[in-house]
Amino acid sequence: MHLNAFLMGVGHHEAAWRLPWSRPRDVLDVGHFQNLARIAERGRLDSVFFADRLAVGDAARHNVTNALDPVLLLSAIATATEHIGLISTASTGFSEPYTLARQFATLDHLSAGRAGWNIVTSGGEAEARNFGRDAADEHDRRYARAAEFLDVVTGLWDSWDDAAFVADKASGTFADTDLLRALDHRGEFFGVGGPLSVPRGPQGHPLLVQAGSSPAGREFAARHAEAVFTAHQTLDDAQDFYQDLKNRVAEHGRDPEHTKVLPGIVPVLGATEAEARDLERRLDDLLVTDHGVAQVSGMLGLDLSDHPLDRPLPALPPIQQINGNKSRYDLVARMAERENLTLREILARLGGGRGHRVVTGTPEQVADTLEVWFTEYAADGFNIMAPHLPRGLEDFVDHVVPELRTRGLFRTDYSATTLRGHYGLPRPAACGSRLGVAGAAADRVPATS
Amino acid sequence: MHLNAFLMGVGHHEAAWRLPWSRPRDVLDVGHFQNLARIAERGRLDSVFFADRLAVGDAARHNVTNALDPVLLLSAIATATEHIGLISTASTGFSEPYTLARQFATLDHLSAGRAGWNIVTSGGEAEARNFGRDAADEHDRRYARAAEFLDVVTGLWDSWDDAAFVADKASGTFADTDLLRALDHRGEFFGVGGPLSVPRGPQGHPLLVQAGSSPAGREFAARHAEAVFTAHQTLDDAQDFYQDLKNRVAEHGRDPEHTKVLPGIVPVLGATEAEARDLERRLDDLLVTDHGVAQVSGMLGLDLSDHPLDRPLPALPPIQQINGNKSRYDLVARMAERENLTLREILARLGGGRGHRVVTGTPEQVADTLEVWFTEYAADGFNIMAPHLPRGLEDFVDHVVPELRTRGLFRTDYSATTLRGHYGLPRPAACGSRLGVAGAAADRVPATS
Repeated sequence: MHLNAFLMGVGHHEAAWRLPWSRPRDVLDVGHFQNLARIAERGRLDSVFFADRLAVGDAARHNVTNALDPVLLLSAIATATEHIGLISTASTGFSEPYTLARQFATLDHLSAGRAGWNIVTSGGEAEARNFGRDAADEHDRRYARAAEFLDVVTGLWDSWDDAAFVADKASGTFADTDLLRALDHRGEFFGVGGPLSVPRGPQGHPLLVQAGSSPAGREFAARHAEAVFTAHQTLDDAQDFYQDLKNRVAEHGRDPEHTKVLPGIVPVLGATEAEARDLERRLDDLLVTDHGVAQVSGMLGLDLSDHPLDRPLPALPPIQQINGNKSRYDLVARMAERENLTLREILARLGGGRGHRVVTGTPEQVADTLEVWFTEYAADGFNIMAPHLPRGLEDFVDHVVPELRTRGLFRTDYSATTLRGHYGLPRPAACGSRLGVAGAAADRVPATS
Repeated sequence: MHLNAFLMGVGHHEAAWRLPWSRPRDVLDVGHFQNLARIAERGRLDSVFFADRLAVGDAARHNVTNALDPVLLLSAIATATEHIGLISTASTGFSEPYTLARQFATLDHLSAGRAGWNIVTSGGEAEARNFGRDAADEHDRRYARAAEFLDVVTGLWDSWDDAAFVADKASGTFADTDLLRALDHRGEFFGVGGPLSVPRGPQGHPLLVQAGSSPAGREFAARHAEAVFTAHQTLDDAQDFYQDLKNRVAEHGRDPEHTKVLPGIVPVLGATEAEARDLERRLDDLLVTDHGVAQVSGMLGLDLSDHPLDRPLPALPPIQQINGNKSRYDLVARMAERENLTLREILARLGGGRGHRVVTGTPEQVADTLEVWFTEYAADGFNIMAPHLPRGLEDFVDHVVPELRTRGLFRTDYSATTLRGHYGLPRPAACGSRLGVAGAAADRVPATS
């Protein structure tokens, strides 16, 4: 089983910052994030991960989560940790491929092979307006741009052969420039000459992660992704997604083992179930209703500010009209319909996990859910979204991880030194495609679980 | 006197990496750069600085200097140091203002107020080809873009009032969004809505540094820069530049004290003058001639590969034809003419300091030059370019800095906590212009020298 700690401000619950023991100013404190990564490393988790958004809106009135540049945070975390993988979101919509390739190659060097890139295409209007556009590109065009972006970035990572960095004092040859390849890419979206200024990193390519669950998102993941973050409310839905994605990966001629499916889980923990329920209630009571309504309105593409809290939702717009996160829309719409939830109930569900599965209970109960999802082919591991930080992550590492170990489900120590190694993934060859053809693998030891 | 340590691979001398004690693979090792910053901090220097170039060329065959993303390196250095300022070059030609504003605001938070941005416009063709263009914009257009870029970036830094980050648990107000300002910028080059996702940093604005010495570059510096890196071979030239720049600053209604002029100095040190000369000869003997000729050809805009090494230069193209670094062209052309240098002599000069002043001698002799330039109005301080690293920086910190202190020219300890504080510069007010109007100054203690 693979475990990724999804780090988010002082907790994933929208109201976590209002708990008496929370330190909301930690969202600007690099020491807080270094501490979280050290906690995750103490638990021998595979990786830590930051989401990202290139805009801030009215939501900041009631919650500020990730304010700082996540790649810079991971650089600071790299030098405070030794083993744990370091994954950042970065957008193909509003970055230049040369710049992004250089950042992640740098992070891979700084961390001795622990960098990962969560590829997002950025559908938000507020982000578009910060980059000279009135609106984001429509969904399919964003994915077309992302595909070309990825071709360029992997080409740049491969533009130095592994053997090109010579540093031969006797001959005066620093780099064997015969082993550098120009890219000379001219495509629909980008023109990039290359080569990159950074020698090939320890991992060859940083780990490629993706989180889109729409059909276009799944196709993109099936072609390119080595880990997929996803959100499901039920075991059935998670199993369907898992099977569909693995099939698509195989259809593209890739090994389904080389794309790890990691659903998000919000573990609300207590020594007893009653204690866990109490924490959950305490958090939900601190939610600011107007804020939640605005968030749900955004997700569902309609204004719910005048909708009575204790009534079920009105008719929703068709999914074709959603240009943002289509899979999140689908998940919330289906959850609301399946359980005939009122707006107030939806607010609590989303405030707790933004559509991800919330599991409330003892460490044994949480481990039960993880075990079932893992053994029943719904997950290769989990994206752990602690509701409050650092305490929720400490609770998970100190109580759930040992329980998973007792059940033989999770590693007791790292057996690899790179992020690819933790996830049991091969190191891509410099001359090959990005589809997992192994080269002179530096770190191919699979994870123990 | 202000001192900035300009960090460059394993040394500024082109052949430094070939010295027996050099570790050329350190150019990829974050620990090396953290160590350099700690050495500079031990000497109580104002700041460390990385140049940057978004391309790699044939020059990599004989020297690889800055391969990694400098902003990521500074993030890692921030958490390994406590006092020293952290300045990175970043290009207005190939970045988005929102992205750059966020990176430097993040660095300012991570370092508790120690970030600085060296603004470059990027005239190189190789860089342009990595960003979808066949050539860089011409000189004046690059500066027009830079001016608009800077307006947007400073506007974004000011888009959070200092008091906007509230984190009031009782009311549930995290950010007072009434104190956030949208930018709604629509200009010739950029459209940026804002506000920035990052609360205002400890310094308000990271320190603004600039290094162009052409007329357009000087005008830009006079309007915006708080520190200027420059290159001069003679005291006369440095004095002319110093006076011209201070006059221009005053003409723009700014306090000339608020733009620090920092010429580059390459200190080649020995316990005796003979030992220093020996080190210089040893370094020059390791230069690879073809590499140097290619570098000089690029600087001067003509192909010198067939020119005899022991003959003076042929007629040079007029400066109007140079689209890259005009001031570097001017400096080399005048140096060659003034001293009637042969191509071989020029190679040694440039291999040692790329046009910056090389001072070879004992710590006392180097201190003599710094003292004269400082007291004779040629410099407010210096950009220290150690020929080999880390040793050349250790020698400077352990032997020249104490000599400067004995003469009362340099601080014995930090008296401020921010980079602006070290340089004796005010903290800009959030609502004011970037031209140095002091607001609620957090750190206005001037440096001791």
